[in-house]
Amino acid sequence: MSSPIVRTVQWAPDGALRIVDQRLLPGEYVERDLRTIAEVAEAIRTLAVRGAPAIGVAAAMGLASALRFSVLADPASSAAASAAASAAAAAAAIAREGAAALRATRPTAVNLMWALDRMLRVIDRAIGPGLVDALRAEAEAIRAEDEAMCAAIGMHGKTLVRDGMRVLTHCNAGALATAGMGTALAPIYAALADGVHVEVFAGETRPLLQGARLTAWELARAGVPVTLITDSMAASLMAAGRIDLVLVGADRIAANGDVANKIGTYGVAVLAKYHRIPFVVVAPSSTIDAQTATGQGIVIEQRAPDEITHLGGTRVAAEGAAVYNPAFDVTPASLIGHIVTEQGVLVPPFHFDHTPITLPPA
Amino acid sequence: MSSPIVRTVQWAPDGALRIVDQRLLPGEYVERDLRTIAEVAEAIRTLAVRGAPAIGVAAAMGLASALRFSVLADPASSAAASAAASAAAAAAAIAREGAAALRATRPTAVNLMWALDRMLRVIDRAIGPGLVDALRAEAEAIRAEDEAMCAAIGMHGKTLVRDGMRVLTHCNAGALATAGMGTALAPIYAALADGVHVEVFAGETRPLLQGARLTAWELARAGVPVTLITDSMAASLMAAGRIDLVLVGADRIAANGDVANKIGTYGVAVLAKYHRIPFVVVAPSSTIDAQTATGQGIVIEQRAPDEITHLGGTRVAAEGAAVYNPAFDVTPASLIGHIVTEQGVLVPPFHFDHTPITLPPA
Repeated sequence: MSSPIVRTVQWAPDGALRIVDQRLLPGEYVERDLRTIAEVAEAIRTLAVRGAPAIGVAAAMGLASALRFSVLADPASSAAASAAASAAAAAAAIAREGAAALRATRPTAVNLMWALDRMLRVIDRAIGPGLVDALRAEAEAIRAEDEAMCAAIGMHGKTLVRDGMRVLTHCNAGALATAGMGTALAPIYAALADGVHVEVFAGETRPLLQGARLTAWELARAGVPVTLITDSMAASLMAAGRIDLVLVGADRIAANGDVANKIGTYGVAVLAKYHRIPFVVVAPSSTIDAQTATGQGIVIEQRAPDEITHLGGTRVAAEGAAVYNPAFDVTPASLIGHIVTEQGVLVPPFHFDHTPITLPPA
Repeated sequence: MSSPIVRTVQWAPDGALRIVDQRLLPGEYVERDLRTIAEVAEAIRTLAVRGAPAIGVAAAMGLASALRFSVLADPASSAAASAAASAAAAAAAIAREGAAALRATRPTAVNLMWALDRMLRVIDRAIGPGLVDALRAEAEAIRAEDEAMCAAIGMHGKTLVRDGMRVLTHCNAGALATAGMGTALAPIYAALADGVHVEVFAGETRPLLQGARLTAWELARAGVPVTLITDSMAASLMAAGRIDLVLVGADRIAANGDVANKIGTYGVAVLAKYHRIPFVVVAPSSTIDAQTATGQGIVIEQRAPDEITHLGGTRVAAEGAAVYNPAFDVTPASLIGHIVTEQGVLVPPFHFDHTPITLPPA
């Protein structure tokens, strides 16, 4: 039996990109095999694949898969590619076009750009009959590195986890967001593999309910006891002594350790501080942006009002009210007990501006 | 033109109980005239009328209305009642039966019991031809007292409100919950009548979204600028210096000033403390329960999981997760800056056990 931890992106037996369609979770578990750039682009754009690491991996694997099936579909060009430089150049052009199309799907996703840049360097190097295999190998390297990154985060992070702990998390920085066992949830999965059992409280994470839909789903699937709460219930659980540890992910970490993450994270951090509960940020070191001095330099995206005013297409909120819907908030470093990356468990004070950080392996 | 502050319960011209059907808000504004015990009981049971004060007033008015229409429908018994003691006794029996039926609709609603007890005392006193009028007079007294209570709360509470303030509130303790201008929102409406303008941020109040559905609706209707947020966004607004005052209601206040209110209130109180923002509880003195020493003595009702797992009848959350869904949380007195009642603005330390409190006027 395969691991109960969900595999968000993997290779199908025929070399296609196989994803779990997160638009259908938690109601339906559907794996989809994607073989064209159009299919991969649509999956990324419509959040069938989501989570910064998973998006980067899916784009690389999808590009490799699409080129493979494009060449298979046109054996003439494939045969010609063995001999003719012009055919090889044509394949490279197709790959570059595909990369550009994928890049346009989520223009602000740093991991997406980074993964596609790696693929473009391979295209530059490997024009010729080996291009399809070279892109497949690079995509597999990107996937495997992401999986290893998650495993390393889990290995370091599990040192903070004790048997019987009650862990609060927010949003989804789990296996569904990566090619491996996740980031914020990796310490829980890694501990579980050692026989160390925790209980998780998952904040539902309004407005988009990633906690209710995704975190609760993947933890229950992996056999981790999980209790769903509205975001407003975390405080009373803390006051009742029912939370021992908070684990959250990060979208961006500034040089001073300030962390931008899903809206609601900052409130949980204040509540954790007030109740003297360790608040731990868990994220790949690629999330650290040493060029941004503090959280004040992080621009917070405002999202559409209907994410709050409507549920399932139906208006629930009153007309006539304005809506404030920031995607993220910033938690100051002073509220953070540890930052866990694949490189280890960091303790305050955080000073990433002068620390040599290994950015995504090149 | 009538006041833009919604009137939740009032007399229809023919003496029926007229309510605003809150099951249909904010999508539709529908007034319904209720003339039978069955109609009134159904309105209370299904939350067409909600909010402790409004429920008590609606029950009293509904009982008076139902008896009036029952007597009108059976003029023989009415005529007989003028003369025959047995007919008068029959009318009293009908009224007592009606009171019992209304009492059963929300067995834990203290205000409902209190209002019906007042009506029962009238029935005991006024058996005879004047019973219908006596019940109508008592119900009108209960309604008018509630309206006056709200006005007095507004008068005291507005002293805490300055022009231009940004006020955060949670749930709905507004006009929709009372026969008057509300409790937590009364200071805002009273200030507005003086030309003092504030801006309100309304937490949507998961799981039942009273903030999004009701508070945003009644404030917008009354011309108060209101911005809807998810409950998880309050912290980042506070950190940005965009909240000056928090006003919330109370379901029960213990003798030491601990306050039970809608789930999420406690978290807002901690956040307000952390950001040095005044946190003010606004409630009628009938909410004070001097028999309960501290908040620890308040039993917190757990509600059905599907309030969190389902939206509009559709499951949104993953199967396999447990659900924690407390209706209330308890905010310790130490986090409360003021408690405003119709009697005035109280400052800490709160000691209600030895303070003579005027319970609902008898």
